[in-house]
Amino acid sequence: MAFWKSLFNNSANAIAPSSKTQSEEETLLKTGETKQESKILFSTTRSIDLYELEELCDAVGWSRRPLRKVRKAMQHSFLVVSMWEERGANRRLIGFARATSDHAFNATIWDVVVHPKAQGKGLGKALMNYMIKRLRQEDISNITLFADAGVVEFYNRLGFVPDPEGIKAMFWYPE
Amino acid sequence: MAFWKSLFNNSANAIAPSSKTQSEEETLLKTGETKQESKILFSTTRSIDLYELEELCDAVGWSRRPLRKVRKAMQHSFLVVSMWEERGANRRLIGFARATSDHAFNATIWDVVVHPKAQGKGLGKALMNYMIKRLRQEDISNITLFADAGVVEFYNRLGFVPDPEGIKAMFWYPE
Repeated sequence: MAFWKSLFNNSANAIAPSSKTQSEEETLLKTGETKQESKILFSTTRSIDLYELEELCDAVGWSRRPLRKVRKAMQHSFLVVSMWEERGANRRLIGFARATSDHAFNATIWDVVVHPKAQGKGLGKALMNYMIKRLRQEDISNITLFADAGVVEFYNRLGFVPDPEGIKAMFWYPE
Repeated sequence: MAFWKSLFNNSANAIAPSSKTQSEEETLLKTGETKQESKILFSTTRSIDLYELEELCDAVGWSRRPLRKVRKAMQHSFLVVSMWEERGANRRLIGFARATSDHAFNATIWDVVVHPKAQGKGLGKALMNYMIKRLRQEDISNITLFADAGVVEFYNRLGFVPDPEGIKAMFWYPE
């Protein structure tokens, strides 16, 4: 049984994950310093507009990818987590991560992104801890990822060990 | 659309992958030195008995895993390849590998195993080349794996680069 399964909603470019478990939303952080209270919300079920996701990925300088393939990748990910900033009736996608998995032993986390304006507040850490919690709830024992050199230290602080026992990340390149 | 989708056949402990493409079998090697010709066959569709797979994994000294979870992992793998030795009417499972994937960008190869008696004949290389070919046919551009120190050189010869551009394999361990 898939923990996370995506469905299309009426909008052609929105991905609306559905889940058999009840509410998959969680409000983790609230800040009320300004006139209107802002809150940060994590979800595995909320519909994600692909253009909004692309805008988020553009903001951190990622290469553009065909939306058709992004949609397919999300549909076939085991877990997709979105992070939102809500202020009154407005909400904005400020973070994203997903994981592939065999639903039994292994999960591999891909495409972790936090909007530059939301960085430096512990939100990347909160997003990753939310991912880990969800994967552990699904009894996945081996949580893995491939980290660029610049973020190894970030993941290390979250409990990820680089190249443990001499294990290497290997990427295939055509000859 | 899933490239590889597993189904149970009548035997409770056999996994019979099914595929929308026609024949997924391929005979790559033939040896006819002995009285009866033996051939090596690769398949993405052939039914795999879980006890026979366990015997193969035992032969290389892997820790045992619950068959229930092995079955689930195979069902949710994107690609499962089995390698068989056939001699007349007899056939024997001598190799196995599988990959998880988002069906769009990434695939990660797991559980690559070749029976000790079949090693040293280039069959591990043939098995991996078959995996790579299948993944490339499905338009997967990023083929990855986590390699134990002892097999880094083996995969390197197949075109896998260890820790490219400083990318690290990271594994999460509970605090």
